[in-house]
Amino acid sequence: MDTNSDAQTDFGTQGIYVTGDEYTRDTNYIESRITGDAADGYPVEAGRYRLVVARACPWAHRSTIVRRLLGLEDAISIGVCGPTHDVRSWTFDLDEGGVDPVLGIARLQDAYFKRTPNYPRGITVPAMVDVPSGAVVTNNFPQITLDFSTEWTEFHREGAPDLYPEALREEMAIVNKRVFTEVNNGVYRCGFAGSQESYDAAYERLFTALDWLDERLATQRFLMGDTITEADVRLFTTLVRFDAVYHGHFKCNRNKLSEMPVLWAYARDLFQTPGFGDTVNFEQIKEHYYVVHEDLNPTRIIPTGPDTSGWSTAHGRESLGGRPFGSGTAPTRPADD
Amino acid sequence: MDTNSDAQTDFGTQGIYVTGDEYTRDTNYIESRITGDAADGYPVEAGRYRLVVARACPWAHRSTIVRRLLGLEDAISIGVCGPTHDVRSWTFDLDEGGVDPVLGIARLQDAYFKRTPNYPRGITVPAMVDVPSGAVVTNNFPQITLDFSTEWTEFHREGAPDLYPEALREEMAIVNKRVFTEVNNGVYRCGFAGSQESYDAAYERLFTALDWLDERLATQRFLMGDTITEADVRLFTTLVRFDAVYHGHFKCNRNKLSEMPVLWAYARDLFQTPGFGDTVNFEQIKEHYYVVHEDLNPTRIIPTGPDTSGWSTAHGRESLGGRPFGSGTAPTRPADD
Repeated sequence: MDTNSDAQTDFGTQGIYVTGDEYTRDTNYIESRITGDAADGYPVEAGRYRLVVARACPWAHRSTIVRRLLGLEDAISIGVCGPTHDVRSWTFDLDEGGVDPVLGIARLQDAYFKRTPNYPRGITVPAMVDVPSGAVVTNNFPQITLDFSTEWTEFHREGAPDLYPEALREEMAIVNKRVFTEVNNGVYRCGFAGSQESYDAAYERLFTALDWLDERLATQRFLMGDTITEADVRLFTTLVRFDAVYHGHFKCNRNKLSEMPVLWAYARDLFQTPGFGDTVNFEQIKEHYYVVHEDLNPTRIIPTGPDTSGWSTAHGRESLGGRPFGSGTAPTRPADD
Repeated sequence: MDTNSDAQTDFGTQGIYVTGDEYTRDTNYIESRITGDAADGYPVEAGRYRLVVARACPWAHRSTIVRRLLGLEDAISIGVCGPTHDVRSWTFDLDEGGVDPVLGIARLQDAYFKRTPNYPRGITVPAMVDVPSGAVVTNNFPQITLDFSTEWTEFHREGAPDLYPEALREEMAIVNKRVFTEVNNGVYRCGFAGSQESYDAAYERLFTALDWLDERLATQRFLMGDTITEADVRLFTTLVRFDAVYHGHFKCNRNKLSEMPVLWAYARDLFQTPGFGDTVNFEQIKEHYYVVHEDLNPTRIIPTGPDTSGWSTAHGRESLGGRPFGSGTAPTRPADD
């Protein structure tokens, strides 16, 4: 398989390229941070920044969940790109006239170019955009959500959970790393494998990790223990896409998520928690993968299945105890779109 | 999607072409029959004919099951093509030197050309070949298995079941027709749909039929009642391929077969019956579909999953009663390859 054309397409919008047979994710991002001390020149300030996402994208999905869990909706507005995009940029095709009403642009790349003319790397979501200048501040997704937790505290809602507790950070870093390399990225390694051999190896790595998670979650309600943390957010965004796209489209098909009783119950527990399921759009998820990856699905036909009604069924995880929001409470505000 | 190239490829070996957006199966076959009265010039005669199949092909699979159930192994020899083929013909690439040891040919088309020089239609399996002349007698698969039941009776093993009982033929014709158009062919209609609209319609038709079967089989052990018949053979060959290829590759993904409790138990009951499971080769099935249909799977990477161990688990269908072989017995001879 010549994956070059696919690789280049995805480099444009998803930061993926292929080295030899195995795909590699470009992890070079714009790393400026929005912080309380404005060390990088970007102070925490309500109303100043726009979070640009696509409902389809798992990396952006983290930020929409954390924004909801922490109640940052009034402080940080959201711009939503459509599920598909052209070779170079995500676009605001869901908005009236195809233009984001706050940034006034049709293509997300314009915000990148405002930051760096001819920005050469991937035009990715999520991106935090500085509304006054129209320029991207950062697209460094693993830091964006941590900063929501630690830098934006003055704007958290009453009862916001601590998704990044100090006492757990060391262990969480280890868990997050394994989830990132083996699961979040692991499904892409299967889907974009350039040979049977690299696919076989990727499949083995992925299911080894899923079996580890299944075992870890058999006796504790959430990844780090009794309470929802950033680690659960990061795992959830892959699990919720698993049966809908990764199982068939990326050939991650030893079994469906729904055939792993522990992991499936864990995923449903999160799905049914405000901030998780209400940020999921299965239609946009499917449209994205099946239409954009033309090298994997030349017909661009979008499967009608799977039946997603199972996501709402009883999960029984309450029997493991736990306090999903710790000493905080669940969000009560309706999801904003 | 331009399905022309795919359609032409498949016309060569699978008898498929596409009209407009919806695929159509070419149902024009060589209709000579091998009969007791030799009305078409081909008498029933042990050792004279060779059944050419591919383990991958569901249409050929019917004939290998029926041959086993009736114990025709000594009367009718078998030639097995490899799981993949070139644009025009199935090939004997599993055999030493790539040549069928009885027919002495490398490509099945040679036997078609012996019958009709430049034979213009699909070079399909199953084919019954007259060994002395080396020419195809018939590739009319729905008739081949019925003739095994009704014309080859003198060579049936002791205890061979009656797969085509006179009293059931009228009702069986109705069931077989619906299974053929909606299920056997229905999965191909999903996979080779030329537009989103024709896929959507095909998906709806397929699962409507599977729901009907699931209901029909809830209270009776086999499709026509208490005993295995030709109708079960015809349904089984699609069901056994469902999770391995049709679910992902053909986007028949409302659910896996293993998520439909009745139909899944029914399929396992058959799988565990001598003559059914012992004629299944999941590796060749997957290789065929994922490698040959390059228009659907340009990478030609073959998925490692699904886990097939579930096929051997208890099915519990004995509780419905029934006598799988009627007044006959199960085959005891080992499968021949």
